[in-house]
Amino acid sequence: MQYDDTYYMQQALKEAQQAYDAGEVPVGAIVVMNNRIIARGHNQVEMLNDSTAHAEIIALTSAYNYLGSKYLPEATLYVTVEPCLMCCGALYWGKIGKIVYGADDEKNGYKHITQENWPFHPKTELVKGILAGECAELMRAFFRERR
Amino acid sequence: MQYDDTYYMQQALKEAQQAYDAGEVPVGAIVVMNNRIIARGHNQVEMLNDSTAHAEIIALTSAYNYLGSKYLPEATLYVTVEPCLMCCGALYWGKIGKIVYGADDEKNGYKHITQENWPFHPKTELVKGILAGECAELMRAFFRERR
Repeated sequence: MQYDDTYYMQQALKEAQQAYDAGEVPVGAIVVMNNRIIARGHNQVEMLNDSTAHAEIIALTSAYNYLGSKYLPEATLYVTVEPCLMCCGALYWGKIGKIVYGADDEKNGYKHITQENWPFHPKTELVKGILAGECAELMRAFFRERR
Repeated sequence: MQYDDTYYMQQALKEAQQAYDAGEVPVGAIVVMNNRIIARGHNQVEMLNDSTAHAEIIALTSAYNYLGSKYLPEATLYVTVEPCLMCCGALYWGKIGKIVYGADDEKNGYKHITQENWPFHPKTELVKGILAGECAELMRAFFRERR
């Protein structure tokens, strides 16, 4: 069975929900290759006391370990929120085949810094807005509770 | 005794030399707080098969672990080469107090993407060009051998 971007974003959302339940900013990511999830990650900045422990970094590192490769040209990373500059750079170095993200992040997303410059590998494909409403709502709910 | 930026950059260069000796792109980093080195790192992308294993990320993660804190507003990161976009984002999240780098990196340094935008924390101080010649020469020697 061929799953679509919406299905995989739902899986990334499950990761984001785990972050939410743990009191972490609710961002989730998965890495898919050949129609199979090979890695998962959710934000663990608070738990690890490590501001580099974003969902994407954890999912990427897990995928590299799993494959024994530092590049992922055949893989797709799904992430619930627009990547930040750090994760964007990590995806560049990983030569990821495709990035699919859900909600835009006006404050911390890469676009507010990189603007018109393409920060990813030239061959990386980018899709945005998949389940954007659900992905954004989880973030809003998190920050609403903390105000 | 109060050490200066040149002294600390020499320590970062020692880390870069370790990377060089291990066949890694020779970049080294250290984190200094209260005039003491609290963390060291050098590029380990090949050894770990992980394209996120840059010198800065390793040094930052080590500093977070050591301090039990995810922020480093009182610390300075010394790195031999201009940080890439990923490391630049990591330094932003870490709210690092000061960044000192040696050689510019026209190809992979953050500036070619961020251009006029300041990608670091508003309070982060930036110093560049310390031992730039030595830092750049180690990189040139590395890539010359591989041509």
